[in-house]
Amino acid sequence: MNSHTKTNQAVAEIDRHQIIYDRALKVIPGGVSRNTIFRKPHPYYVAQAKGSYITDIDGTVRVDFANNMASLIHGHAHPAIVKAVTEQVQKGTAYTMGTEAEVAFAELLNERTPEFENIRFMNSGTEAVMTMIKAARAFTGKPKIAKAEGAYHGTYDFAEISQTAKPSNWGDIEHPNKVPLVHGTPQGVLDDVIIFPYNDIDRTLRLLDEHAEDIACVLIDPISHRVGMFEVTNEFVEAIYNWTRKHHALMVFDEVITYRVNYSGAQADFAFKPDLTALGKIIGGGFPIGAVAGNADIMDVLNPRIPDQKHPHSGTFSANPISMTAGRVAMELFDQQAVLDINKLTHIARKQIREAIKMADVPISMTGYGSMMRLHLQEYPPTTYREINQSAEAKAVINEILDYMFLEENIILINTLSCMFATTLTQSDVDRLSAGLLRAFKLAKPKIDQL
Amino acid sequence: MNSHTKTNQAVAEIDRHQIIYDRALKVIPGGVSRNTIFRKPHPYYVAQAKGSYITDIDGTVRVDFANNMASLIHGHAHPAIVKAVTEQVQKGTAYTMGTEAEVAFAELLNERTPEFENIRFMNSGTEAVMTMIKAARAFTGKPKIAKAEGAYHGTYDFAEISQTAKPSNWGDIEHPNKVPLVHGTPQGVLDDVIIFPYNDIDRTLRLLDEHAEDIACVLIDPISHRVGMFEVTNEFVEAIYNWTRKHHALMVFDEVITYRVNYSGAQADFAFKPDLTALGKIIGGGFPIGAVAGNADIMDVLNPRIPDQKHPHSGTFSANPISMTAGRVAMELFDQQAVLDINKLTHIARKQIREAIKMADVPISMTGYGSMMRLHLQEYPPTTYREINQSAEAKAVINEILDYMFLEENIILINTLSCMFATTLTQSDVDRLSAGLLRAFKLAKPKIDQL
Repeated sequence: MNSHTKTNQAVAEIDRHQIIYDRALKVIPGGVSRNTIFRKPHPYYVAQAKGSYITDIDGTVRVDFANNMASLIHGHAHPAIVKAVTEQVQKGTAYTMGTEAEVAFAELLNERTPEFENIRFMNSGTEAVMTMIKAARAFTGKPKIAKAEGAYHGTYDFAEISQTAKPSNWGDIEHPNKVPLVHGTPQGVLDDVIIFPYNDIDRTLRLLDEHAEDIACVLIDPISHRVGMFEVTNEFVEAIYNWTRKHHALMVFDEVITYRVNYSGAQADFAFKPDLTALGKIIGGGFPIGAVAGNADIMDVLNPRIPDQKHPHSGTFSANPISMTAGRVAMELFDQQAVLDINKLTHIARKQIREAIKMADVPISMTGYGSMMRLHLQEYPPTTYREINQSAEAKAVINEILDYMFLEENIILINTLSCMFATTLTQSDVDRLSAGLLRAFKLAKPKIDQL
Repeated sequence: MNSHTKTNQAVAEIDRHQIIYDRALKVIPGGVSRNTIFRKPHPYYVAQAKGSYITDIDGTVRVDFANNMASLIHGHAHPAIVKAVTEQVQKGTAYTMGTEAEVAFAELLNERTPEFENIRFMNSGTEAVMTMIKAARAFTGKPKIAKAEGAYHGTYDFAEISQTAKPSNWGDIEHPNKVPLVHGTPQGVLDDVIIFPYNDIDRTLRLLDEHAEDIACVLIDPISHRVGMFEVTNEFVEAIYNWTRKHHALMVFDEVITYRVNYSGAQADFAFKPDLTALGKIIGGGFPIGAVAGNADIMDVLNPRIPDQKHPHSGTFSANPISMTAGRVAMELFDQQAVLDINKLTHIARKQIREAIKMADVPISMTGYGSMMRLHLQEYPPTTYREINQSAEAKAVINEILDYMFLEENIILINTLSCMFATTLTQSDVDRLSAGLLRAFKLAKPKIDQL
């Protein structure tokens, strides 16, 4: 494609997407239902997608390294999922009765991660984390939760405190401020949340000790995308595990994103296992899903057969046979070999991108694990949330790189400069990614050098 | 079908359903992800459904008056929805980019209910109510919400206080107790919820006045299924509207269930309109959905184009093109005439059931509106939540009637003895319903008379 063609196409694109976006602005606040897809001057609109390629309404085809925020482990419209869902749609999508699809999928996840003694399904990762926190309170009878500064756990207000803490408001690391994400968050919510610095054992234990009698659970991302996408240490998990045993509290994991990194989830890496785990994203096979899984004694707070049930729970679309069927097919396909293969390809991608960083001679670092990776516009990778460059200048350069990759290289990244791989990606897609990033790094180098 | 055949079939049913349920019990707490589908000794499992008929795994066909808890306005597997979804599934189900499907559906709902100046989509009614409450707090900067005793609004803990209050714990009507649904609900949550008696203007205004400076919103079901399925009065809405204007608070409606009763929702009946409305169920066309809609100035708290956005919000599957497409097709089909037709058929059903009540000479009453109805095992219909017979004896008789209808008449009701109609139901289905209920009433009469 020569530059002339590209320019014409770009002009056409702007018009057609802008026309839809102008309609959207009249009926949707800011024109989007998800801030994730918002871009300036407008989002881009999809016509169709297949495997790792998304075609927009202008016919521009892009390779997708975002996979709907890590939720599509087999890319778009996998034939086996399309077939299974098409068959189920003809039989109905939701009933006020049970389906074997729910039971079969629960069995599959239980087999996959033996610590998932019991599992219960809901509609989103947000609902999964909310239900997990409520279950921890119901089991322990205690009100407070502890979560890591910077960690993202969905939109339940208790779980989103300090998600976007920044230098101007995060306070002393010994006692991190409780920074509400949403204006008007009740003080009672803030009072019942303890913010700890991820992987910082001494400070975290001191903070937990201050509220030892009131903590229902300590919530951990085993690999925290927003904290910087690096793994929690074995020592940290062990310390939290031991603390929670001592104080009748639960250690709970958010594996909505990270379940993809091993056959049995990120928790397979640790000697000490969480009491409960929240799931979502890939286990839905491209359809809305959430789940809470773990120790059967704790999960029994959700058991309607037990008199005076501690945590009554329902949900109109929970465990609907479409999500159950798509999820089961997706997870059957994501077998031991598929996990090894996607992790290997992502490893190669990280290696090639490291070479691109060297070739471009830019102070960029990378973190990641399994089928995930994230770039940082700083020479050394962050080891804490507070080490991430939060400046407006850094964010502006990130947006320039994202725009360049999207518009000039036709490569879709997540807006933290992250990639979440799908099994449909190939070595040639990875070559395109690393070559595109090399050009992006070279273009952005003058600005990156000044950060 | 003679009684011999029926008995054999019943035996076969018990075995096959029990076998699946025994598997479920090993991996799911109580064997269900939704308490709604739980029955003793086990739930029944679906093979397929079409229109208003559900076939279970034994081949027993039942007529469906539950419609997945009011969520399927066109019954199961409507051909137009199946066709549209089947086409979309082949193009992908979710992207980290926009789709015109979202915009077109937002335009449709905005046209349908002009007060929905802006709308934003999410994944469930629970998420819709949670987002609406958070938006009200973000807009007003105040922490508290007020909700009706007995009302159901999903599983966000602030919204589920006193959902199942009962005589032993509901306290003085002048100051209804705040009864947590889930064990371990933080005191801070209880402190920020005010419980009022539905439709009771004087008491409600007095309760609101006690916290006048701190109330972000007053949450109302325009027809509250759980309070007793009767409509809020015009006077109550007017009083709440005026109170909220005076105290810089919002009046918000939960129309997740009730949007079905008029072309523009239940709110069409009132001179005073809510500031925000939560939607879900039927607007998803059988797929997971939630939405918040209303005044554009308030909805702007969710607008990512406004600096220092008050309510940042995202969601992996929010506004996914499957739910948007299925929802749009379903709501296009549910046009003015379809609304009139379904309401007329439900009106006829209520009339026929009233005759059955007379013929059986049982102290049963009925409430309902539009395409909804609920039976009460008491001579006069409840006009408040506290008038509903909450005794264990009454619940046992309700379960006997439900079991008889399900197992002997092959008719599916909602477990509050309610029906939520679909456009696929016909006069002959209604005749079957009223004839079945007549037999049920006669059988249960000795026990009902003793309640």
